[in-house]
Amino acid sequence: MLSPLVALAQTDPLPSWNDRAPKQAIVRFVADATRPGAATFVPAAERIAVFDNDGTLWAEQPMYFQFAFALDRVKALAPEHPEWREKQPFKAVLEGDLRTALAGGDAAIVELVMTTHAGMTTEEFARTVTDWLATARHPRLQRPYTECVYQPMLELMTYLRANGFKTFIVSGGGVEFMRVWAERVYGIPPEQVVGSTVVTRFEMRDRGPVLLRDPKIDFIDDKAGKPVAINKFIGRRPVFAFGNSDGDQQMLEWTAAGGGTRFMGLVHHTDAEREWAYDRESDVGRLDKALDEAIAKRWTVVSMKDDWKTVFPPARR
Amino acid sequence: MLSPLVALAQTDPLPSWNDRAPKQAIVRFVADATRPGAATFVPAAERIAVFDNDGTLWAEQPMYFQFAFALDRVKALAPEHPEWREKQPFKAVLEGDLRTALAGGDAAIVELVMTTHAGMTTEEFARTVTDWLATARHPRLQRPYTECVYQPMLELMTYLRANGFKTFIVSGGGVEFMRVWAERVYGIPPEQVVGSTVVTRFEMRDRGPVLLRDPKIDFIDDKAGKPVAINKFIGRRPVFAFGNSDGDQQMLEWTAAGGGTRFMGLVHHTDAEREWAYDRESDVGRLDKALDEAIAKRWTVVSMKDDWKTVFPPARR
Repeated sequence: MLSPLVALAQTDPLPSWNDRAPKQAIVRFVADATRPGAATFVPAAERIAVFDNDGTLWAEQPMYFQFAFALDRVKALAPEHPEWREKQPFKAVLEGDLRTALAGGDAAIVELVMTTHAGMTTEEFARTVTDWLATARHPRLQRPYTECVYQPMLELMTYLRANGFKTFIVSGGGVEFMRVWAERVYGIPPEQVVGSTVVTRFEMRDRGPVLLRDPKIDFIDDKAGKPVAINKFIGRRPVFAFGNSDGDQQMLEWTAAGGGTRFMGLVHHTDAEREWAYDRESDVGRLDKALDEAIAKRWTVVSMKDDWKTVFPPARR
Repeated sequence: MLSPLVALAQTDPLPSWNDRAPKQAIVRFVADATRPGAATFVPAAERIAVFDNDGTLWAEQPMYFQFAFALDRVKALAPEHPEWREKQPFKAVLEGDLRTALAGGDAAIVELVMTTHAGMTTEEFARTVTDWLATARHPRLQRPYTECVYQPMLELMTYLRANGFKTFIVSGGGVEFMRVWAERVYGIPPEQVVGSTVVTRFEMRDRGPVLLRDPKIDFIDDKAGKPVAINKFIGRRPVFAFGNSDGDQQMLEWTAAGGGTRFMGLVHHTDAEREWAYDRESDVGRLDKALDEAIAKRWTVVSMKDDWKTVFPPARR
């Protein structure tokens, strides 16, 4: 009879992954990094694994979920802002005309995001995120946004942590948007979530101190900003990095440039049926230059259609 | 015979602390926070403890050690900068005339710091810190700077970690200056060191990517900046905070304003013989308003002279 420990070791840690090259590369990397005495061994303190969020840990179509939150907030706040009925981009959002709302380009996007993400305390903002997640549902997947996460990536993070890795999110998304749910959904505590920030300031009020979110961008954690944020927040070069778009290219390059055992991976959205299929031409989550570099440098490219047995976790009732 | 476990539990975790009110308050706080089922219980994930560095974990007289590093770097770099022989504040530093060097006020200080801390890659900077620490000695204490740390605070951090707390540094010092040695000296890994930053940018060079430190301040992690940085980097309100100066006042206020079990402490430098005695009138590490607030709100004030049996660890040979 097998002892419980041997049985455990023989349990597949990545049951939602098909037995193809990406899964094999992950398992080989973990074995190499954790084998004591091996030349490939990575000391526990250096086992830093970073993950992009949108399109890597959860879906990002038909729009970044945080932007869906912003649009819903505009609708929720509209009764307090009668002037929005005549003012773009708010007017178009309230009329459900996203194309017109986005005609204003980046300026319109920033205005929609700042209006719904700033001018309040950090605690007030966190509450609006919590409230939204409790009721909002993804329009196509018909489930809460926090269940539009990738089951194979949940297994991967659990597998890494079981092998002494510290898992971090390094995302272009807002850090205070993600921290509200990242611990519950991914098992990643707030102090291991790195993201974009708005300028925040301390204010002493009669009832005690608050932190106020100002409508001003502090830092955008995307593209070349990702290695900068990794250095600023984590202070150690990762040995493992996973992304899905050109926004992750520099993070992967920075990870790859270290010495010793490392792993660089990309999720390639190839599954129009179960999720979405998009890459070089997509506005959201474009994967073009990073895909070329991954192929040239033999980084791991995961084909969602071919490599994942399951995409999303079973729906809760 | 006592079992090893019982013997361990009966060992004093804070042997360098005299048995007075501050030690008792620390031990009571830890017991309250970790007693399962108690109303005072703090879940493990929320056991965030933050420590100022200069004057709280290591000494800060006669000047911040990081500034001593900057002055030594000016001397080391002088042969490459013949123009400094005629240019202030460098000329005065090279002549050992600190009073004249500082006559230029903040602008002179910023110039000395930026000249020695920026215009290089993150790896080059880390190397200069490592090299300096290997040879520099504190002028009065006659030991390496990394041995000018407070033995009672080392014990306190170990005690907290043994009880499931995650210890962070939240310091006005440069984050990349501290991360070089904080893990070895304090047991605090780079990702738990929060501090001031310069603007850093990613650059792809022929031999691979680098991060360049620009001579421009990104963020000063002091005073009202400390709760802002705690929110940005840690994303969770601490339940335990220790400082020593007015620069820590807002961090203590932010910690105190949370609900449930908490601990706010200040190191009061009262020991002219073994260390230094200074508070309300000091230029470095002034403790004035924060001391008034600590007394009014019954935060724990540690008198170095009365509460600490030992100040520094035994000298190494």
